[in-house]
Amino acid sequence: MEYNFASRVERMESSIIREILKVTEQPGIISFAGGLPAPEMFPLQEIKQTFNKVLGEGDESALQYSATEGFYPLREYIAAALAEIGINTSPDQVLITNGSQQAIDLVAKLFLDPGDVVLVESPSYLGALQVFNSYQASLVAVPTDPEGIELDSLERAITQYKPKLIYITPTFKNPTGETMGLERRKDLAAILARHHIPLVEDDPYRELRYSGTPVPPIKAFDKDGKVIYLGTFSKTVAPGLRLGFATTSAGLMPKMVLAKQGADLHTGTLVQRVLYNYLTSSNVKGHIKAICKEYAIRRDTMISAMKRQFPEGVKWTEPQGGMFLWVTLPPQLDTTSLLNEAIKLGIAYVPGPAFFPTGGGRNCLRLNFSNSSPDQIETGISRLARLFHNNLQTVEKGTNGF
Amino acid sequence: MEYNFASRVERMESSIIREILKVTEQPGIISFAGGLPAPEMFPLQEIKQTFNKVLGEGDESALQYSATEGFYPLREYIAAALAEIGINTSPDQVLITNGSQQAIDLVAKLFLDPGDVVLVESPSYLGALQVFNSYQASLVAVPTDPEGIELDSLERAITQYKPKLIYITPTFKNPTGETMGLERRKDLAAILARHHIPLVEDDPYRELRYSGTPVPPIKAFDKDGKVIYLGTFSKTVAPGLRLGFATTSAGLMPKMVLAKQGADLHTGTLVQRVLYNYLTSSNVKGHIKAICKEYAIRRDTMISAMKRQFPEGVKWTEPQGGMFLWVTLPPQLDTTSLLNEAIKLGIAYVPGPAFFPTGGGRNCLRLNFSNSSPDQIETGISRLARLFHNNLQTVEKGTNGF
Repeated sequence: MEYNFASRVERMESSIIREILKVTEQPGIISFAGGLPAPEMFPLQEIKQTFNKVLGEGDESALQYSATEGFYPLREYIAAALAEIGINTSPDQVLITNGSQQAIDLVAKLFLDPGDVVLVESPSYLGALQVFNSYQASLVAVPTDPEGIELDSLERAITQYKPKLIYITPTFKNPTGETMGLERRKDLAAILARHHIPLVEDDPYRELRYSGTPVPPIKAFDKDGKVIYLGTFSKTVAPGLRLGFATTSAGLMPKMVLAKQGADLHTGTLVQRVLYNYLTSSNVKGHIKAICKEYAIRRDTMISAMKRQFPEGVKWTEPQGGMFLWVTLPPQLDTTSLLNEAIKLGIAYVPGPAFFPTGGGRNCLRLNFSNSSPDQIETGISRLARLFHNNLQTVEKGTNGF
Repeated sequence: MEYNFASRVERMESSIIREILKVTEQPGIISFAGGLPAPEMFPLQEIKQTFNKVLGEGDESALQYSATEGFYPLREYIAAALAEIGINTSPDQVLITNGSQQAIDLVAKLFLDPGDVVLVESPSYLGALQVFNSYQASLVAVPTDPEGIELDSLERAITQYKPKLIYITPTFKNPTGETMGLERRKDLAAILARHHIPLVEDDPYRELRYSGTPVPPIKAFDKDGKVIYLGTFSKTVAPGLRLGFATTSAGLMPKMVLAKQGADLHTGTLVQRVLYNYLTSSNVKGHIKAICKEYAIRRDTMISAMKRQFPEGVKWTEPQGGMFLWVTLPPQLDTTSLLNEAIKLGIAYVPGPAFFPTGGGRNCLRLNFSNSSPDQIETGISRLARLFHNNLQTVEKGTNGF
């Protein structure tokens, strides 16, 4: 039958990344396109032991329906971990979600009527843009510099557009890997204090730092509950568990719980208990340290290979953490139209425009370094270098009338 | 801060059941209020073994991000199981969701603009009403009789209200336990064939049949993809895994996937693999038979105790399966105002009005029999009988001028 969909469906588009990922499953392709952690770093044995412990206790409630808010001891653990990075919250203000993607969806559901403005960074996390589009929001892109969202532009946009929500990923941002510095975080909190708008601080990469000095989350400077802080265990434990969280003001929490109740009643009981047991019985800090050590090697391998092989005029970010870096080509190149040739050369990336809510990034691309081995990274960067050299020569030849 | 919510938030209310469940956690209370399966019937050991098998294979992809659609072998298993009950579908048309609650939410997201009409049974599953309200739908209650939704009324309502969606639970319906017969199912499919409206057939209790003859799902008579069929493993395996599914037409499936992608990227990788392994390596049919045997005892214990103890004028359904039955008191009694006294007597139920989208059920209540032992059921029904006797006497005395 032909369906008569809700009007929001017009705004729901498949992620280009999901489409690219299908192509990259072909053998022989090295993919820097996905945003996957390295599976060889998953704590498989520890998680197996924990499942045995949780189910071995013969406590059937691990398989029963459970509270919409989440498993209370896990919420306590998260509140305590947040205190260590300067966030003063309570377990009662922590909601367990199916990955932090669900938290973005629940916040959008609570705040966005069709046409409401959301201020986002440009570029921004694609999955969040998809959510805001599905609620028919009007996305306003605020310019960014290497430190993240520009504060003068942000405050002008707040005054001009009266947004319902601000969404940013200030730490090792997807897609550029860049991080907002301490002073700008404080200044941003001061702006929030002057305006009546909630800000979503999406912080999935915080613990993946390989160099530089840690900076507290913006939420640490939030005096009056403006910041909705999102975190996840997808990058530090395993994404296949689908476990993330939101911490909000005491006033907002009951509405988040209502939204979650309608969405899926609650997050899986068993995986929450397993995660809690894993977190409290394993050397989690040591595990994260091992991940960081390996990812630092991969980042360094990628940057060093780019330095050796990329043609002049190609620029890139050198992130202190996270899983991505961002490459900017000379303006005559278009990364979307280059992608087919790239795949023929056996290398995949995500073209920049995917991350720009209102246009831009035509000559940019995102590279993931967490999900390829150093050897694959060397080979992949060679292939990319060949692609760029080929096309820069073509352009130059073209310019010269050949 | 004070929040400026989306207009849909006005329609989002906490489930009265969740509120009652909090009260029933007090010691000494026997609760017929929840909708929980019996945890002592969960296949705890088998699931533990399966986790070991899945994680023991050293395949880290069980902990990695995975396809939005779900784990393909599990989708194949479901498609084959659906074929056995007369549903002709393909694995490509099966979407794995976080329980069937999420499937209801995704369908609502795809079809409902504010003010759109959804036709629902009266009474209906409360969790679905919550979802439709959260999308600001206009709920139109179609009358039901012991066989389910009345078809003449349904077709009149289709013509009059031009609904975007019809939602029903035709088998061992929550809250009444009643089931639509074969002929009415065929007639309903014929009505659908004449109109251009998708129908959600929510079928969580199908496999919990204790007496009578199985009837095929309405989807089995659906020739042109009008029926969106929802199922779950919450009642036959374990709800704490949060695993359900939807099967739709090939045309609708890509939109369902898009909605799911925005909502939470995908359902947990590990629990899907574990469920698949459990389903294909255990005696699942034997397990469901054992559940049915136990629940039949509980249903029979409840009905027999009601026959012996309830005052004249109290009526109830005698369902052939599922987890609930429905009690109708003499019209002078109000089950909502009786609930406090019930809890003082150590017994909880859900008052009827919770299930009526547009009013009704004032003298009705829902009882769950799956989550209490036969002994608890005997005691609980005695307490309810005392409650009814006390209040019928009061009413009679009142009527007689005492």
